[in-house]
Amino acid sequence: MNHNTGAILVLSGPSGAGKSTLLKEVINDIGECYFSISTTTRPIRDGEKNGVDYYFVSKEEFQKDIEDEMFLEYANVHGNYYGTSIKPVKKALKLGKLVIFDIDVQGNTVVTNRLGDITTSVFISPPTLSELKHRLEARKTDAQDVIDKRIKMAKKEIQRISEYDYLIINDNLEDAADILRTIAKSSRLKIPGDEINEFTRKWEDID
Amino acid sequence: MNHNTGAILVLSGPSGAGKSTLLKEVINDIGECYFSISTTTRPIRDGEKNGVDYYFVSKEEFQKDIEDEMFLEYANVHGNYYGTSIKPVKKALKLGKLVIFDIDVQGNTVVTNRLGDITTSVFISPPTLSELKHRLEARKTDAQDVIDKRIKMAKKEIQRISEYDYLIINDNLEDAADILRTIAKSSRLKIPGDEINEFTRKWEDID
Repeated sequence: MNHNTGAILVLSGPSGAGKSTLLKEVINDIGECYFSISTTTRPIRDGEKNGVDYYFVSKEEFQKDIEDEMFLEYANVHGNYYGTSIKPVKKALKLGKLVIFDIDVQGNTVVTNRLGDITTSVFISPPTLSELKHRLEARKTDAQDVIDKRIKMAKKEIQRISEYDYLIINDNLEDAADILRTIAKSSRLKIPGDEINEFTRKWEDID
Repeated sequence: MNHNTGAILVLSGPSGAGKSTLLKEVINDIGECYFSISTTTRPIRDGEKNGVDYYFVSKEEFQKDIEDEMFLEYANVHGNYYGTSIKPVKKALKLGKLVIFDIDVQGNTVVTNRLGDITTSVFISPPTLSELKHRLEARKTDAQDVIDKRIKMAKKEIQRISEYDYLIINDNLEDAADILRTIAKSSRLKIPGDEINEFTRKWEDID
């Protein structure tokens, strides 16, 4: 019983915190995972692939899924919808996988409220604001106004770190990866509420 | 910053769950620890040592410490006081140690409320009620009425497992020790609220 249940690991943090790089470092050491792919209505960009970067759908499809309660969480950001479909998450959990979410602070609130018993949340932060600026500029993928927007968003998100179980300050990849590895391993050990209820019920009955 | 702060690991579970044996299995693998020793007003028993099993004090001393707010948590069980002094805990945390508490469900509620940001709580349970009975009887240290009392208490405590971060069902020492080891390692990675506040403040100020 201790080992066969799925669990959820939420990773949040500003663009430029190094979430993807960190995840690549640890992904092979933490057991079977399912990396949740978000659904969005924003246009696909050059180099992106449907079903890899996002599931790209129309506004109408997305709104229908909202009505059908197909999303674990969703949000409208600057006119585009972003959401997490429940179905693949449920399937992965049933297979005992660790489901990894790369979602923002709002998304974490919803997931933790709905599935807190099996969720561990981690905020990954760059060490300083100037380091974040430096990283975003060095990537050369974003225009200055996009970088400015990301930094504004980062400053907002970082004010809510206390809502997370763990904070990883990513100033050294190797150290940060060690920490994430340990947290991810323990996140698998959370046991769903219904299994706990079943277990406690057994103790109630007998006299 | 990620590594130098202390943290708290709460272990609860009925007498006979195997907490002490488990702890002995993992204690050398989880970094520097401080095992919190409770203070009590109950009489010292044969084979017990003051400062090892408990700090044994008089009712008057205990009540004075309550007035002086020297306890992190305390309770009156069957007419005897049991409590955790704040001072040694604070000192150990300052040294970056993992402070381990062996306390009951009530104690966990208080510690988690007061120091939740750095606390990880684990409930250790025997697999079944009949296994618990078997273990308590095999120990041959308790009279039947004490065993009956312990089992009654266990059944009550187990109804509150959902208040804990983790449940370890101790049906195999090696497996259970592996799980506790992983949880204990990650419990060290929790960062105190005041350090988080300091970190987030830095991001607020700069423009």
